[in-house]
Amino acid sequence: MKTLITGGTVVTATGSSLADVLVDGETIAAVLAPGSALLGFDVAANVDTVIDATGKYVIPGGIDAHTHMELPFGGTNASDTFETGTRAAAWGGTTTIVDFAVQKTGERVQDGLAAWHEKAAGNCAIDYGFHQIIGGVDDASLRAMDSLVDEGITSFKLFMAYPGVFYSDDGQILKAMQKSAETGLLTMMHAENGPAIDVLAAQLAEAGKVAPYYHGIARAWQMEEEATHRAIMLANLTGAPLYVVHVSAKQAVDQLAWARDQGWNVFGETCPQYLYLSLEDQLGAFSEEWGAFEGAKWVCSTPLRSRAEGHQHHMWQALRTNDVQMVSTDHCPFCMKGQKELGRNDFRAIPNGIGSVEHRMDLMYQGVVTGELTLERWVELTSTTPARMFGMYGKKGVIQPGADADIVVYDPNGRTEISAASHHMNMDHSAWEGFQIDGHVDTVLSRGRVIVDDGAYRGAKGDGRFVKRGLSQYLI
Amino acid sequence: MKTLITGGTVVTATGSSLADVLVDGETIAAVLAPGSALLGFDVAANVDTVIDATGKYVIPGGIDAHTHMELPFGGTNASDTFETGTRAAAWGGTTTIVDFAVQKTGERVQDGLAAWHEKAAGNCAIDYGFHQIIGGVDDASLRAMDSLVDEGITSFKLFMAYPGVFYSDDGQILKAMQKSAETGLLTMMHAENGPAIDVLAAQLAEAGKVAPYYHGIARAWQMEEEATHRAIMLANLTGAPLYVVHVSAKQAVDQLAWARDQGWNVFGETCPQYLYLSLEDQLGAFSEEWGAFEGAKWVCSTPLRSRAEGHQHHMWQALRTNDVQMVSTDHCPFCMKGQKELGRNDFRAIPNGIGSVEHRMDLMYQGVVTGELTLERWVELTSTTPARMFGMYGKKGVIQPGADADIVVYDPNGRTEISAASHHMNMDHSAWEGFQIDGHVDTVLSRGRVIVDDGAYRGAKGDGRFVKRGLSQYLI
Amino acid sequence: MKTLITGGTVVTATGSSLADVLVDGETIAAVLAPGSALLGFDVAANVDTVIDATGKYVIPGGIDAHTHMELPFGGTNASDTFETGTRAAAWGGTTTIVDFAVQKTGERVQDGLAAWHEKAAGNCAIDYGFHQIIGGVDDASLRAMDSLVDEGITSFKLFMAYPGVFYSDDGQILKAMQKSAETGLLTMMHAENGPAIDVLAAQLAEAGKVAPYYHGIARAWQMEEEATHRAIMLANLTGAPLYVVHVSAKQAVDQLAWARDQGWNVFGETCPQYLYLSLEDQLGAFSEEWGAFEGAKWVCSTPLRSRAEGHQHHMWQALRTNDVQMVSTDHCPFCMKGQKELGRNDFRAIPNGIGSVEHRMDLMYQGVVTGELTLERWVELTSTTPARMFGMYGKKGVIQPGADADIVVYDPNGRTEISAASHHMNMDHSAWEGFQIDGHVDTVLSRGRVIVDDGAYRGAKGDGRFVKRGLSQYLI
Amino acid sequence: MKTLITGGTVVTATGSSLADVLVDGETIAAVLAPGSALLGFDVAANVDTVIDATGKYVIPGGIDAHTHMELPFGGTNASDTFETGTRAAAWGGTTTIVDFAVQKTGERVQDGLAAWHEKAAGNCAIDYGFHQIIGGVDDASLRAMDSLVDEGITSFKLFMAYPGVFYSDDGQILKAMQKSAETGLLTMMHAENGPAIDVLAAQLAEAGKVAPYYHGIARAWQMEEEATHRAIMLANLTGAPLYVVHVSAKQAVDQLAWARDQGWNVFGETCPQYLYLSLEDQLGAFSEEWGAFEGAKWVCSTPLRSRAEGHQHHMWQALRTNDVQMVSTDHCPFCMKGQKELGRNDFRAIPNGIGSVEHRMDLMYQGVVTGELTLERWVELTSTTPARMFGMYGKKGVIQPGADADIVVYDPNGRTEISAASHHMNMDHSAWEGFQIDGHVDTVLSRGRVIVDDGAYRGAKGDGRFVKRGLSQYLI
Repeated sequence: MKTLITGGTVVTATGSSLADVLVDGETIAAVLAPGSALLGFDVAANVDTVIDATGKYVIPGGIDAHTHMELPFGGTNASDTFETGTRAAAWGGTTTIVDFAVQKTGERVQDGLAAWHEKAAGNCAIDYGFHQIIGGVDDASLRAMDSLVDEGITSFKLFMAYPGVFYSDDGQILKAMQKSAETGLLTMMHAENGPAIDVLAAQLAEAGKVAPYYHGIARAWQMEEEATHRAIMLANLTGAPLYVVHVSAKQAVDQLAWARDQGWNVFGETCPQYLYLSLEDQLGAFSEEWGAFEGAKWVCSTPLRSRAEGHQHHMWQALRTNDVQMVSTDHCPFCMKGQKELGRNDFRAIPNGIGSVEHRMDLMYQGVVTGELTLERWVELTSTTPARMFGMYGKKGVIQPGADADIVVYDPNGRTEISAASHHMNMDHSAWEGFQIDGHVDTVLSRGRVIVDDGAYRGAKGDGRFVKRGLSQYLI
Repeated sequence: MKTLITGGTVVTATGSSLADVLVDGETIAAVLAPGSALLGFDVAANVDTVIDATGKYVIPGGIDAHTHMELPFGGTNASDTFETGTRAAAWGGTTTIVDFAVQKTGERVQDGLAAWHEKAAGNCAIDYGFHQIIGGVDDASLRAMDSLVDEGITSFKLFMAYPGVFYSDDGQILKAMQKSAETGLLTMMHAENGPAIDVLAAQLAEAGKVAPYYHGIARAWQMEEEATHRAIMLANLTGAPLYVVHVSAKQAVDQLAWARDQGWNVFGETCPQYLYLSLEDQLGAFSEEWGAFEGAKWVCSTPLRSRAEGHQHHMWQALRTNDVQMVSTDHCPFCMKGQKELGRNDFRAIPNGIGSVEHRMDLMYQGVVTGELTLERWVELTSTTPARMFGMYGKKGVIQPGADADIVVYDPNGRTEISAASHHMNMDHSAWEGFQIDGHVDTVLSRGRVIVDDGAYRGAKGDGRFVKRGLSQYLI
Repeated sequence: MKTLITGGTVVTATGSSLADVLVDGETIAAVLAPGSALLGFDVAANVDTVIDATGKYVIPGGIDAHTHMELPFGGTNASDTFETGTRAAAWGGTTTIVDFAVQKTGERVQDGLAAWHEKAAGNCAIDYGFHQIIGGVDDASLRAMDSLVDEGITSFKLFMAYPGVFYSDDGQILKAMQKSAETGLLTMMHAENGPAIDVLAAQLAEAGKVAPYYHGIARAWQMEEEATHRAIMLANLTGAPLYVVHVSAKQAVDQLAWARDQGWNVFGETCPQYLYLSLEDQLGAFSEEWGAFEGAKWVCSTPLRSRAEGHQHHMWQALRTNDVQMVSTDHCPFCMKGQKELGRNDFRAIPNGIGSVEHRMDLMYQGVVTGELTLERWVELTSTTPARMFGMYGKKGVIQPGADADIVVYDPNGRTEISAASHHMNMDHSAWEGFQIDGHVDTVLSRGRVIVDDGAYRGAKGDGRFVKRGLSQYLI
Repeated sequence: MKTLITGGTVVTATGSSLADVLVDGETIAAVLAPGSALLGFDVAANVDTVIDATGKYVIPGGIDAHTHMELPFGGTNASDTFETGTRAAAWGGTTTIVDFAVQKTGERVQDGLAAWHEKAAGNCAIDYGFHQIIGGVDDASLRAMDSLVDEGITSFKLFMAYPGVFYSDDGQILKAMQKSAETGLLTMMHAENGPAIDVLAAQLAEAGKVAPYYHGIARAWQMEEEATHRAIMLANLTGAPLYVVHVSAKQAVDQLAWARDQGWNVFGETCPQYLYLSLEDQLGAFSEEWGAFEGAKWVCSTPLRSRAEGHQHHMWQALRTNDVQMVSTDHCPFCMKGQKELGRNDFRAIPNGIGSVEHRMDLMYQGVVTGELTLERWVELTSTTPARMFGMYGKKGVIQPGADADIVVYDPNGRTEISAASHHMNMDHSAWEGFQIDGHVDTVLSRGRVIVDDGAYRGAKGDGRFVKRGLSQYLI
C-alpha cells in the first residue's frame, strides 16, 4: 500500500515547507519536493492513493504522553476503555498515547504491567506505550524496575499526593530516583503535597464547604510549588532525570525554570485545562441539571488555577520559552452520572479527571490562531518533544524517511466545535462544551493506514500496537 | 547536475536517522529511505554523482552569523578578504556567513552597505548575507534603516563599547531599538560598557601594565554583565527583539536567562574561544618569537574569561539549556606581524580579533565527542538556529526538499589537527594551534556543487551569492 | 540649663520603654528609670525645666538626609532658603538636615562647598551637614575629593540623569567610585538613565504630550531599574559603598535586594511621595486655578509611579524588610506661581521637586498608625539609620548619655492636618494638602534648647550649627 | 544593693558610647554620662559597689535561645543538667537561656512542660525560659497549645527530621502552623528531610560507611535546603511566622533570603559550629584515644558543612546582611565516654549534639576581632535580637532603665583559651579545644547580682528564675 500526500505544508519543530510525503507500507519512504516527480519519475502515478493536502498542514501524528484509560480511581473506573479512548484520540489527530500501567501498594509491578498489557492489547485504534506507576516503593518493586527498560517501559510515575493510595514518602521517592539515575528510567512526578492538602480538604469538608470549587481551594498553589521544589531537590541529590506532570501553578513553573537555569535535567508538561480554564470558571459553573455541582466536570488534580492570579497567562509564556516542554491531556474521563456525582455531597469523593484526549491537537492549534504559539511550536509541543522525551523519536514525532507513517492532515480553514453531542469519548458531558476551533483534523494516518478521513472513522479495534520505548532523548 | 548522498546519517536539530539525500541542481529534491530506490525506481542509477556517506553524518552546512572580513579596525584591516575568508570557511564546513557591513559615524548607511556589497560580490566561495553596523544613530541613519528589510538586511548591530568609533549612547540605542520594534529588524548588541572600560584600560596603561593580558583585566566581567542588562532593559522598554553578540561572562549569561524567564525576545551567541580558551591561558602564553606578547593572538572583545571563575564551564551549560542559542566565530583575523604587533607596547593598540571561521564546525563537534553537546544540538547551534534567527530557514539550516543543497558530510572517524601550517585563513598564526579534533569535514556542497572534497578545494571565487534574508523566525 | 523630660515612652530602633531623659546643656546627661529620683536624689527638683511627656513618645530628633535648600534648578531656585526650610523642618520634628552642596561642571569643588557654607551659616534653625554634589568629575574635582572627609563631608552625589547639567558618564562615575573606595566617602547616586529619558521626553513633547503627567511616562521604571543595576555593578567593580537616592520603582528595589543578598554595601532611601502618591493621582490632579496643570506640584525625579503596578505597596514592604533602609524627603520646593508654571507648555520645563521637609516625621508616623511600620522602625528609618548611614550616630540619631539633646516629644493622641494654609515651608501650595495624621509633634529640642513647643516656634535663625560627619557606620 | 559600672563603653545593637550604668536591685536604674556625677550629685559615692569597666565593653548579657539541658536523646541524656549548664553559660557571659520542653508522641503537652519546669526550677544559675517541642501534633496537643501564650511559652518547635521520634508530617505541620498563625506562637522548625536522610544513612551504614564523617554525608545540604523551602511554603500558606533553627547550608540561607525578599515573616538562626567548623575538619579529626572516631564530637544535626563548598563563608555574610538574624548554640552536650561512643560502630547511634553554651559570646566576639562582624552586630546577634525575637526585649537584651540588670563586662584586651581542662560544662571533651579568643568575659551580673567576677563563680544554684515571655517583637 503506497500513499502520497501531496501539495501540503509539512510542519516540523523547526519550520515548515511545501513538500510531498510518500508512504510505503507502514513507514515514510520519502519526503519530496512538491510536484510528486523525481528525476523524471512520476511518483504520484506509481502510488495506490494520493491524498491532496493543498492548503493544509501535514504534521506528525499527535502523541499524548499522559492518559489514563480504564483507570480505577475513587471507587470507579475512568469511563474510556482503551478501545473508546484511543478511537477518540484518533478522531482528534493523536496517533500514539502513553498510558499508565498501575502497580498498587501490595501488588507486584510485573502484575500491574501485565494487567495493563491485557487491557490494551487488541483493543487500541492507535499505537500505545506505557509508563509504570509505582504505587508502592519497596525492595520488590525496586528490583522489578530493573527490567522495565528492557520491556520498553522507560519511565515511571510517583505520587507525592494521595496518601494511602498512590503516595510515596520522600524516602521511597529517594530510592526510586536512585534507581532512575542508575537505569536511565525517567522519573515522572505528581507534585502536590498530599498530606497537607488532605488536611486542608478535610477542614473544608468539616466546615461544610463541599462544593466542587473547594477542591481547588484545598489544593493550594503553594502545595504544588512546594512539591515541585522537593522533587527537584531529590532529583538533584540522586542524579535522576525528572519530569513533572500536569503543572498548573505559575510558581511551580518558576521552580522548573530555576532548575533549568542550573542546567539540571528537569522537565514539565502542562495540559489544555491549565491554559484555558480557571478556578473562577469552576466557581461560576452552573447547569440546569446539576446546578453548581456542574463544576465537578472540571475537578482534576492538580486543580484549575485562578485566572486573577495569572497562572494561565504565565503557562502560555512558559510554553513559548520552553520552561514547560510538552502538552499532554492527563485524559482521565468520568461521567457526571454515576461517577462525578459520587462527590455530590463532598468534593473529596468526586473522581478526579477531565477527558481531553480527542481535543488536544485542536485546542493547542487554537493557540496558534490566537498568536500564543508558532506553528512549529505546536508540532513540537504535541508530537516531537513527546517523542524525544519518551524515547520514540525517529519512529514517532517526525516526518522523515523511515519513520512510522503517523501523519495528520490538518486544515487551517476548517472549523471544529467541541460538544458532548459530537465527541467520540465515552463521556456524558464535555469539559470543553462549546469551544470553537479555527481548524480541523481532516485525515489521520496510523502507520500508513488512513484511519480517519472525510469525517469517518476507517480504522478498527486492534490496529494499534504496543510501542517499546527507548530512553529519553531529551536530556540536557 | 544530480547528486545522491547515500548511506549517511542525516542529523537535524531534533534527531538523526539513516537517509539518502537527493540533490537536483542547487536544491534538495528529496530525502529518501536508505537504499536509494523508490517505488521500484532506482534513484542512484539516475543521478550524475553518488557520494557515499556510509558511517558519516550528513548535516546542513554551517552558518557562521558573525564574521568580519576585511574589517577596518585599529588602523589596519582584518587579514581575510571575502575571498580568503569564505574559502577557509568552506574548508571547515561552513556554507554561509553573515558578515557586517559598516556605517561609520558621518557616513550614510546606504554607502556603507554598498561598499560591503562591492567587497563581497564576485569574491565569495560560499553564500553570504549582511548585518548592518550602525555606527552613527541619527535622523539620516534611522530613516535609512527603513529600507533595510527590503534589501534583505534584517538585523543591525550597535556598540555599547568603543567610544569615538562605533559607540552609541543610550539615547541613540533607544531610538534605534524603537526602529527595530517598528520594522522587525533584529537588534544585535556588542554589550560592554565602553566608557568605563576605556578608563580602566587607560589606568592600566598609565601604570605600565601594557601586556596583552591586561586587555582582559580592563574588560572586567562586570562591564559585560552591566551592558547586557542595560541592553535588555532598553529592549524591554522599546519592544525590540535583542540578540547579544559574543557573550563570554557567565554573569552575562545569567542576565540572558533571566530575560528569557520573563518571556522576552532576548537571545545570545557565544564563540568557540569562550568555550575553550581562558584568561589564564593568555597570561601563560609565550613563544620564542613573541615572548609574552604571544598572548596578543587571543586579544578579542569581549575578552577571554578566567577559568578559575568558571565561565567556560557555565557557557557549555548555557548551550545545553538554550540560554545561549548559537555559536558564531566573530571571525576577525589579524596577523601577528604588522598587525597585532601594533600593540606591542600598549595592549590598547592591539587589533581585536581571533580568526576561527574555518574551525567552528570542528571545534563544536569536539564538544559532542567530549559529551558537552548532543549531535542534534551541534547542528542546531551551528546551522539550524542561525538560519532561523536570521531569517534564512527553509533555504538554509535544514536538510529538506526545497532547501538549498548546502550539505556537509562529516566523518566521526576522521581526525583534524589545527595549525597555521595547514589552515586556509590568511593568518600567520592560529589561535587554535595544536587543537585536535576527533572528526573531519569530508565533503562540502554549496547549492549542489561539491566545493570541498577529498582534501581538495573544488570551488571557485564568486561561487557564493548574496542571501536576502527575511525577518527572524526565532522570536518567542 | 537643665531639662528633664519625664513620664514618656522612649522609642529606639530596637524597642520602647518608659524612661525619663535628663538634658544638661546641649547634651543628654542620663536616661533614668521613670519617676525622676535616683538613689534618693530628686532629679526633677534639681532641673530648670520639666517637660511632661506622659502618654507621649520621646524620640531622637528626625534626620532628613536629603534636602535641597535654595537649589538653583531649571532656571530658578528652590523656594525654601536655609532659614525657611530648616525652620519648617523644626516644626515637623526634624532636628538635622543633610543638604547638598553643589559643584557644577567647570567650577571647583571647594568653591561650591564654600558657597553652600555661606548660604547656610547663621541662617539655620537646626543643625545641618552637607553632602557634596560632584557635577563634573575631572582631575581637579577628584583631587578635591581627597579633603572632603577632613571637612566632615563624607558623602558625595553623582547623577546618571540630567545630561548637560549634573550628569556623569560611566567613566566619570568609575573614577569617582574609585575615590569613594579609597577614601571611604559614600557614593550617592541619582539612578536614572538620563540620555534615554531625555529622548523619550523629547519625543513626547514633540508629539504634543506636554502635560505634567508625561513627566512620569518619560521617566519609565525600566530606566530607573537599569541605572540602579549599573550603579551597583560599577560599585562592585570598584569596591565603593553605594547609596541610591529617592528610589521609587519596585524593580529598582529588587536590584537593591539582590545586591544585598550578595553581601554588597548597597543601600537605598525612598521618600514619602513614593509611598503615598501615584502616577494615577497625578493624571487625575485638577484644580480650578491650574486645571490639569495642577499635577505639576508632583513633578519630581524619580517620578511618581503607577499604583496599578504596585510600586507603593512594594516600597512599604521594602521598608519593613530593610531592603530600603531610610526615608528622606528630597525636599526641593518650588511654588506653582512663577516656578512650576515655567513648564505650563512643556513638562520638561517644570522645576523638579516636592517640598516635604516639614512633614516627613508625621507622614511616616501615619505608617505606624496604619500598620505598615512598627514604632521602632519609624524611629530607625527617620533618625537612627540616617545617623549611622551618614556618620553622625552617637551625637545624633539616638537618646543616650553624651548624645546631642535633639529630642522630639510626639503625641500619638494629637492630630495634624497638612495644608498650605498652615505649613511653614515657603511654598504657595502643599504636595500633601489635606493629608490627616493621627499624631502630632508637640515639643522639639535642638541641642537642649526647646525650639518648638505648644504650637509656637521658640528658636532663632542661626541656632543650627554645621555638623562635621564621620564615615558611614552602616556598612555590611 | 546598688552597683555602678563606670568608665566602660556601652555597646548596643546600633552603636557604642562611653556611659556609666547604675544598677539598683535587680534592674538598671540609669544610664549616665561618664563620670558618675549628676546635677552635682555624686552617684558613685552613693552606691554599694563600683565596677571599673574602663577600657572594656559593657553589654547586655547574652541570650542563648537554643539549649537542650538534660535532653533525653538516642537512649541517653544530654550531659549538662540545668545546674551545670546554666552555670557554664554564666561563666561565658550568657545570662538567659531558652531551653526546649519536650512533649513526646503520646504524652500530654502540659505534662512535658511541667516536667521541664521541675527539672529547671531551683537549679539554674541564670534566668531561663522555655520553647515547647511538639512531638506529636494531634487534637489534644493542638488544644494544649492554646494556653501556651498565657504560660509565657510563646514559641514551639517541630521536626521535619527524626521520623518515629520527634517527626511531624506535613499535615501535622500544617495544623500546628495554623495554630501558630491564630495565637501568635512562633513556629520553630528543625528543617531537614528526615525520611530521605534516614534512607541515605541506612544505605551508608549497610555499605560499611559507619564513621562519624558519614553522618554529614547522609544529611546532604539538599535535604536541608528542601525542608527549609517546604517549611517556608507551609508558613506562607497558613500565615504562621517561621523561625528555622540551626541553619548550616548556604542554600538554606538562600531560601531564607528569598522569603525575606518577599516580605514574609521568616527568620533563621545559625550556631558557632557552622561558622567555624567544617565537614573536612570532621573527616580529618583524629586522636590517640579515639582514633578517627574523634570526629564524633562534632556529630550534630544539621551537620557540619563542607568548607570547599563555602558554607561557612556564606554564613558569616548572612549574619552581616541579616538574612540570618541570630546566633544560638543548640547546646546539646554528650560525653565521648559512655555517650558518643554508643555510635562507635554506626554513626547513626552517636547522640547528636555539641556543647557550646559557655563559649558563644567569646566565639562570636572573635568574629569582631577578625572583621566578620561589627561590635554592634555582635550584641545584636547574641542578645538584642534573641530578646526581641522571643518576646523578652525590654527586660532582656538591652541596657536601659527598667531592664533587668543582666550585664557583662567584656575585656577586649583579655584572652580566653578554650579547653575541656578549663571549661565548666559537664563534658569530657570540648568541641572547641584549643580555640583562642582575643577577649575575655570579666564580670557577669544577673539581675543585679555579680555571679561571675575575677575568675570566680559567685552565684548559686537557684539564682535563675523562669522568664514568662511575650509574643515575638521582631516580625516584619
